[in-house]
Amino acid sequence: MIKVGIIGATGYVGLEITRILSTHPNVEITSLVSKSYAGRKISAVYPSLKNVLDLECESLDIDKLCDKADFFITALPHGVSEQVIPELINRGKRVIDHSADFRYRDIEVYEKWYGRTHAMPQLVDKAVYGLPELYRDKLKDAVLVANPGCYPTCSILALAPLVKHKLINLCSIIIDAASGITGAGRKADLMYQFCERSENYRAYGVATHRHTSEIEQEISLLAGEEVILSFTPHLLPVKRGILCTIYADLANKCTTSELLEVYKQYYKDEFFVRISDEGQLPELKDVSGSNFIDIGLVVDKRLDRVIVLSALDNLVKGAAGQAVQVLNIMNGFPEKAGLDRPGMYL
Amino acid sequence: MIKVGIIGATGYVGLEITRILSTHPNVEITSLVSKSYAGRKISAVYPSLKNVLDLECESLDIDKLCDKADFFITALPHGVSEQVIPELINRGKRVIDHSADFRYRDIEVYEKWYGRTHAMPQLVDKAVYGLPELYRDKLKDAVLVANPGCYPTCSILALAPLVKHKLINLCSIIIDAASGITGAGRKADLMYQFCERSENYRAYGVATHRHTSEIEQEISLLAGEEVILSFTPHLLPVKRGILCTIYADLANKCTTSELLEVYKQYYKDEFFVRISDEGQLPELKDVSGSNFIDIGLVVDKRLDRVIVLSALDNLVKGAAGQAVQVLNIMNGFPEKAGLDRPGMYL
Amino acid sequence: MIKVGIIGATGYVGLEITRILSTHPNVEITSLVSKSYAGRKISAVYPSLKNVLDLECESLDIDKLCDKADFFITALPHGVSEQVIPELINRGKRVIDHSADFRYRDIEVYEKWYGRTHAMPQLVDKAVYGLPELYRDKLKDAVLVANPGCYPTCSILALAPLVKHKLINLCSIIIDAASGITGAGRKADLMYQFCERSENYRAYGVATHRHTSEIEQEISLLAGEEVILSFTPHLLPVKRGILCTIYADLANKCTTSELLEVYKQYYKDEFFVRISDEGQLPELKDVSGSNFIDIGLVVDKRLDRVIVLSALDNLVKGAAGQAVQVLNIMNGFPEKAGLDRPGMYL
Amino acid sequence: MIKVGIIGATGYVGLEITRILSTHPNVEITSLVSKSYAGRKISAVYPSLKNVLDLECESLDIDKLCDKADFFITALPHGVSEQVIPELINRGKRVIDHSADFRYRDIEVYEKWYGRTHAMPQLVDKAVYGLPELYRDKLKDAVLVANPGCYPTCSILALAPLVKHKLINLCSIIIDAASGITGAGRKADLMYQFCERSENYRAYGVATHRHTSEIEQEISLLAGEEVILSFTPHLLPVKRGILCTIYADLANKCTTSELLEVYKQYYKDEFFVRISDEGQLPELKDVSGSNFIDIGLVVDKRLDRVIVLSALDNLVKGAAGQAVQVLNIMNGFPEKAGLDRPGMYL
Repeated sequence: MIKVGIIGATGYVGLEITRILSTHPNVEITSLVSKSYAGRKISAVYPSLKNVLDLECESLDIDKLCDKADFFITALPHGVSEQVIPELINRGKRVIDHSADFRYRDIEVYEKWYGRTHAMPQLVDKAVYGLPELYRDKLKDAVLVANPGCYPTCSILALAPLVKHKLINLCSIIIDAASGITGAGRKADLMYQFCERSENYRAYGVATHRHTSEIEQEISLLAGEEVILSFTPHLLPVKRGILCTIYADLANKCTTSELLEVYKQYYKDEFFVRISDEGQLPELKDVSGSNFIDIGLVVDKRLDRVIVLSALDNLVKGAAGQAVQVLNIMNGFPEKAGLDRPGMYL
Repeated sequence: MIKVGIIGATGYVGLEITRILSTHPNVEITSLVSKSYAGRKISAVYPSLKNVLDLECESLDIDKLCDKADFFITALPHGVSEQVIPELINRGKRVIDHSADFRYRDIEVYEKWYGRTHAMPQLVDKAVYGLPELYRDKLKDAVLVANPGCYPTCSILALAPLVKHKLINLCSIIIDAASGITGAGRKADLMYQFCERSENYRAYGVATHRHTSEIEQEISLLAGEEVILSFTPHLLPVKRGILCTIYADLANKCTTSELLEVYKQYYKDEFFVRISDEGQLPELKDVSGSNFIDIGLVVDKRLDRVIVLSALDNLVKGAAGQAVQVLNIMNGFPEKAGLDRPGMYL
Repeated sequence: MIKVGIIGATGYVGLEITRILSTHPNVEITSLVSKSYAGRKISAVYPSLKNVLDLECESLDIDKLCDKADFFITALPHGVSEQVIPELINRGKRVIDHSADFRYRDIEVYEKWYGRTHAMPQLVDKAVYGLPELYRDKLKDAVLVANPGCYPTCSILALAPLVKHKLINLCSIIIDAASGITGAGRKADLMYQFCERSENYRAYGVATHRHTSEIEQEISLLAGEEVILSFTPHLLPVKRGILCTIYADLANKCTTSELLEVYKQYYKDEFFVRISDEGQLPELKDVSGSNFIDIGLVVDKRLDRVIVLSALDNLVKGAAGQAVQVLNIMNGFPEKAGLDRPGMYL
Repeated sequence: MIKVGIIGATGYVGLEITRILSTHPNVEITSLVSKSYAGRKISAVYPSLKNVLDLECESLDIDKLCDKADFFITALPHGVSEQVIPELINRGKRVIDHSADFRYRDIEVYEKWYGRTHAMPQLVDKAVYGLPELYRDKLKDAVLVANPGCYPTCSILALAPLVKHKLINLCSIIIDAASGITGAGRKADLMYQFCERSENYRAYGVATHRHTSEIEQEISLLAGEEVILSFTPHLLPVKRGILCTIYADLANKCTTSELLEVYKQYYKDEFFVRISDEGQLPELKDVSGSNFIDIGLVVDKRLDRVIVLSALDNLVKGAAGQAVQVLNIMNGFPEKAGLDRPGMYL
């Protein structure tokens, strides 16, 4: 049993962390920090939690926090983390952070794509990229973990077997992705009003979305050479879920079933990665509400091109669930603890 | 640990029972009976279950079933139950049934509203109405339980304190209700196609919906006299959830806060019934995915009329979750077992 | 051909007025006033209008406006109207206003329900309530018209035949209504974010919604005596549309078909009021995008109670379309001009 | 004024043709043929049409039809057309057909992708592909027109300027498309039930969708050489609209603004093709309910790749609206007649 504090608990990612941990068998939530709702019960902000977790939100006070918890998950707006994370690390606490700050090995890449100076460069080397399927061993003893972006998780896991086994032309990768609106977080914004988004669909951040660089970093590491690629996100009129449709030219002819076998082998020990059988394709409702990522693929023989489809819940495997999976690894808990439930389907 | 068979496992209610029981700490699912999908894994029918429950669906064979399980939950289309339930009861199995067949104390009322002859009248006296908040004691030793309808659960629990305490004029009850589309079950039907329902809303079964009679039975029992009332269901463009808006004229003047106090007192020991604070009103997203029912109310002083609002997830507290709550009571498990998670909110 | 200025053109109601008038055969839009978007083309704000209307929005300048147009439609936030409308009237312009300011015959009622002092009491007597089916003759020569609220239009037209013919008990009226989210206008507000409203449903303003008083005023006038009633609005996860479900106790026994005949007779000359045949009920998709209001009803013989259902598009018959219908009447144009298209259904 | 018969009037495309023509200034609808609803008023099937068009649907009787109309639009299921279209042509009627039967110049390609023998090969040479922006001159005197597919219209118009001006590498074209569910037509099908599609998203027909061959035919003709390409459709949880996201490697370096200028020049005389300004991207709500197609693009300088976005309403510019545009051309009516209204936006 560990005592966990959630800093930034009332945004959508914070809520999802709270929801999952509220019934986690090895975790006690001892602090919920929220600037906007300090002094109110979390169950007053989100009545779904009533009778399950009625803890009061508190404002940020590092001393108090450190007395109450040993492990922290942070989901903070940019510019606040630097007042919190170094201090927590200094006091010997372990932290999983949801910002982009510690996802990059090369600070220059971060600064170029995010258009700002890195505020905590001294911590970058300490940080481990929190994708268990690629970095499980390093995560066990990590002190600071950068939880991956939602699009990167969905893209990297879908591409890893192809890249690692050198099955595709690395110049040809195109990731066409679509996300639910919770990806934009909880805020009042005209663009995300119901009447602007219902029955609507659009691309955004074309050729400029920041997650491109995060995906490129990890794909390059898997490839052992620098890879640049196309990434185009779209905004779906749904709450949860990301579907990536990924195109790549095959290095050598091969069939759908041969490639599926490669994937099944590559992920054979991964509970949360499910490879679709031939003829089946992932869809959002299969993963929604769960920590699974579903991956399927089709080879287009006319073009010697593979189309990989991957689906996850952006709030779970794309954020809060992945953080809990990492928390489990860091603490020696069963990796499925708190995450064993299937998705909702409906 | 009990062994449970689910008969009619691939409809929406069957899926939801399966989903909840798949990680229930005291239950092993040993049989999934499905006419349509016998021979296929449940996780092929609903890929959301993959890696969690990969059991194969089987066709109906009472002998085999009774060897494998001691407890059954049935969610069957009308006309099939009579071939199954009496046989299960004869062999000493306990059954929770989702049809209307055993909800009525008076077979004539059933036959009038359902327009057919009752096929198992001999079992009616054995059956207990599966609403734990009203019949918990009787449920403990029940052999056959009739799981209540979704609208009745949402209506009866919202009215019970007012009726029991004789706070309203019994002739004045109007229940205006709205349901998500899962309430219609899983079937290909033009009326429930996405393009017919998205951005749409309508009433149906006005003055004739069968659940009217089920609500009237229980309200009459609570009142100690015969009550007839208006019930108007509507079809919301959502998957899950029921909201009832209930109107009744007050027998005597009283305030919102006085009535809320009556409700809090009445349900003070009920984990799954949450009374909203004054000024708060239930909404679907607070209960969706959970076994909670939320109830709020407002007194309109100009008219001496109370408006009660109640919300639940029709697939959970309105069907599968309530069945699991009853299963827990019947087997002496903690009543929250398998049902402790909060709703999804998002 | 008249020259029309739209003041407050970039809110949702303003957009809808602009959309309808952009192809109206007797109208030229000469001014679009928008505080937020002055200097930008309307088609840059709403790209749906590109190639159809590319007029530039302008800031409010009464002199300029009055040079360009003779007829004005105002859809302004509270507190701005008083700087605009009296001046327009003084200069001999005719105005249709979308606020509540001129809907009330009794300023005290307005001040009580809206919680503020009326800013233009001198104009109240000049104003005509813009419901053509009740006030067509007065509208012909009106100088100032108060466009009715969306809920009131849907409620009053549904109740008028019953009230006028004294067929119901006036103490027993309950209006349970549900609206699409465009009713809240165009603004960034957490409550109306997609993720807060999709798959959700709730009541609001229970026993306190301001439209109650507007409905009561008109029903009282039809009845010839003071009527108070229940009105409960709900928020649907749809963009457009209002459905009212109205309950009233019958003064004398009568059948569904008899009452439908009363309605057909009452509205026999009204193109925009469609009475559903027995067994048919209105739904949102039948009226969405059109100026029609559909009305159906069922008599519940068990209770001698009538349930009336009425549906309209809150942005069209509930706002902009009704304003255009009134504009047509005021100018002697065919009442259907610009409004002859059927709804979208899909 | 021409007399028009619609054969297959009660499917979604048939309804949309009916809706548009019901207020077309130069058209009188004289026949609505519907197998399923013969003998019923169209306004009983689709109450949205009540008071606007109350014509009775009739069964198929060529003699009667030919007496009543001179021009026909057919939207028939496969296998029925061959009993209708040759006969209409023989009797000197002009026909716009919505099936794939007459879209192909090479019958072999049709037979390969559609997996069946062509039933009316003698008519293929007579047919003109009904895309006005490419074939306007040929359409003027056409007797038989094949209305293009929805995805092909959205893809071909988005690619035409690039292909015609040889600005891209023809081997590199990838079309990633997403459609609303009306594209599947009106039928009871489990896959298209509300509860299966709401909050869901998936790809389908990956590497095998028939529209691939139709797009390839037209792109090859524009290119003057054979082109094969990737086309991946997805199913959006919306009713109307298609968005294509198209990737192609540039033949030579160029900028976003240079390419946009090429597009604006190419489509300078096309009312229904709107090119988005730099920094603006098309979205479904801008075109929904209208006959416009919006096209925008971004050059990704890092990769010398262009991403073109195109959006249209699959029922209008992708089907019924385009048919009406062609009807206007064939009859010398203003090309905008009946199609001048902007989209709904909301």
